[in-house]
Amino acid sequence: MGEAKTAGGPDADRQAAELAERLFAGDRRALARAVTLVESRRADHRAAADALIARLGARPRDALRIGLSGTPGVGKSTFIESFGMRLVEEERRVAVLAVDPSSTRTGGSILGDKTRMDRLSRRPEAFIRPSPSQASLGGVARRTREAILLCEAAGFDVVIVETVGVGQSETMVAEMTDLFLLLLAPAGGDELQGVKRGIMEICDMILVNKADGDLAAAARRTQADYAGALRLLRRRAGDPEDFPKALAVSALQEDGLEEAWAEAQSLDRFRRETGAREARRAAQAVSWLQAEAEGAVLSAFRKDPAVAAIWPDLVQAVAEGRLAAPDAAARALAAHRR
Amino acid sequence: MGEAKTAGGPDADRQAAELAERLFAGDRRALARAVTLVESRRADHRAAADALIARLGARPRDALRIGLSGTPGVGKSTFIESFGMRLVEEERRVAVLAVDPSSTRTGGSILGDKTRMDRLSRRPEAFIRPSPSQASLGGVARRTREAILLCEAAGFDVVIVETVGVGQSETMVAEMTDLFLLLLAPAGGDELQGVKRGIMEICDMILVNKADGDLAAAARRTQADYAGALRLLRRRAGDPEDFPKALAVSALQEDGLEEAWAEAQSLDRFRRETGAREARRAAQAVSWLQAEAEGAVLSAFRKDPAVAAIWPDLVQAVAEGRLAAPDAAARALAAHRR
Repeated sequence: MGEAKTAGGPDADRQAAELAERLFAGDRRALARAVTLVESRRADHRAAADALIARLGARPRDALRIGLSGTPGVGKSTFIESFGMRLVEEERRVAVLAVDPSSTRTGGSILGDKTRMDRLSRRPEAFIRPSPSQASLGGVARRTREAILLCEAAGFDVVIVETVGVGQSETMVAEMTDLFLLLLAPAGGDELQGVKRGIMEICDMILVNKADGDLAAAARRTQADYAGALRLLRRRAGDPEDFPKALAVSALQEDGLEEAWAEAQSLDRFRRETGAREARRAAQAVSWLQAEAEGAVLSAFRKDPAVAAIWPDLVQAVAEGRLAAPDAAARALAAHRR
Repeated sequence: MGEAKTAGGPDADRQAAELAERLFAGDRRALARAVTLVESRRADHRAAADALIARLGARPRDALRIGLSGTPGVGKSTFIESFGMRLVEEERRVAVLAVDPSSTRTGGSILGDKTRMDRLSRRPEAFIRPSPSQASLGGVARRTREAILLCEAAGFDVVIVETVGVGQSETMVAEMTDLFLLLLAPAGGDELQGVKRGIMEICDMILVNKADGDLAAAARRTQADYAGALRLLRRRAGDPEDFPKALAVSALQEDGLEEAWAEAQSLDRFRRETGAREARRAAQAVSWLQAEAEGAVLSAFRKDPAVAAIWPDLVQAVAEGRLAAPDAAARALAAHRR
């Protein structure tokens, strides 16, 4: 593809080279710094981030990327802590990234407080990163895709991408991970809070949490209900017959986590052997290219001074009904092309 | 905004001028022809459609635009027929446009057969148009927005935009109409088929259909349930206190339709008086401009020969992990700008 070229000049290149070396050595502080760069909107940070990302391809690492979704109150933090501790005790390095497109509104409802994963966050084998306060889903998507690559480059074995079920965030997370898990509460909610069919269709495993104490029976019943519902969905081509599946777990009592991990590994192993994982990752990378290219093209349009000069007038004329929207759009495009 | 300019040259202009005159005269055949033009992908049709749409601003008409959603089996066709007949008998002209993004997959599940609205379709005061077989939601959105303007130009008093609850189609329809109604069946479905919160938040009225015969009691109960659920949602700023509201109706027995129509008119009157309707339409027009401009910019990028020349190589390099997606996107953009 020709020589590597970065927009940021020698400074960004040097910074990227140094940071890449520390990343490849597994330095957690370098990882934190790198994630800060990809989250930043400063032009010099962006240039350094681009230069850094461009370098990662040279030394690809391979983590199992797990997407995890669940509404607030379902016990996501407790689950991730228990699940993550189990992995860490097996000498795996675990990174946790949060995706919360609502965080600009709510002030960051998930992972805002690291103390919620107290034990895990104190382990040197773990890296936990809260969701940034970004306005757009597209911005969060870009940051998360890049942060996953950075975690892999830093040698993490498992990258968990956590999200709350808000809008399109689950689909987005599923499109950047190898496995997608949905955490549910026993007998969860009324009709209005039900699991959307679209989410059922993208998830590989449903984990019904809180299968302990008073809720144990309800959790088993919910698990059976969802197991039945999953059977009604069409099986994904190429997957083992018994997936997607539903399990009951207790993050609090660390019950069923072993089985959940074994099932996750088994599905991943199957997909690696059939080539499905590689194909999925290739398709995801191409989707990312598409999204990046479209984002860049639209950004160039919005920042074009020739467009900016006439845009407010066009908006006003359209709002007042003096000009039809397609007509106004054609004028903006003509200005952009000139 | 300077002189009107159309891309299609004198032919498209002349055709547009003739068609516009027939439209303004209320000619239904001209309307059908015009909608065919906006649905077409042929370049000459598109040019004629653009020229036509650009002419409509000069003689704006004003219909009440009603979005109507409901899953298959809920009785949408029966409802629209009964509701439409009532309007027609009040000497109002009614247009019905269908939006079905799934029609390419299912072969057109709604309004594919006009005989489903037999009485209404035979009335000269009515215009019924099935959903086109378009691939993308964006394509359907554009066609529907333009078709609404055409119906208004042809003097229709009420334009009903019907959709099935698939993906983003409900939000899309809500963004191009003045009122959004949701038609439900009594005690409808289990948790998985429940009404999504997002839909509750955009709808102005929930109509529980089939409040007749054996289902009458269930319909009243469902209506009460949803009335309760709607009260839990935040009221939309500026709307009357009792909206959104839930009613029980029987499209079959033509029961409750009078009340539904009175409520719809009352809400619309309120919003016209406060200026909310005008503000909503202005915001919708600006969103449309945004969507049109972005669509045009992306289309120019995709069709650019300089991009097309390197795109397959970029896709392959990204799929094989030899090139990072942001890096590849930057190269495509550089080719486009050159």
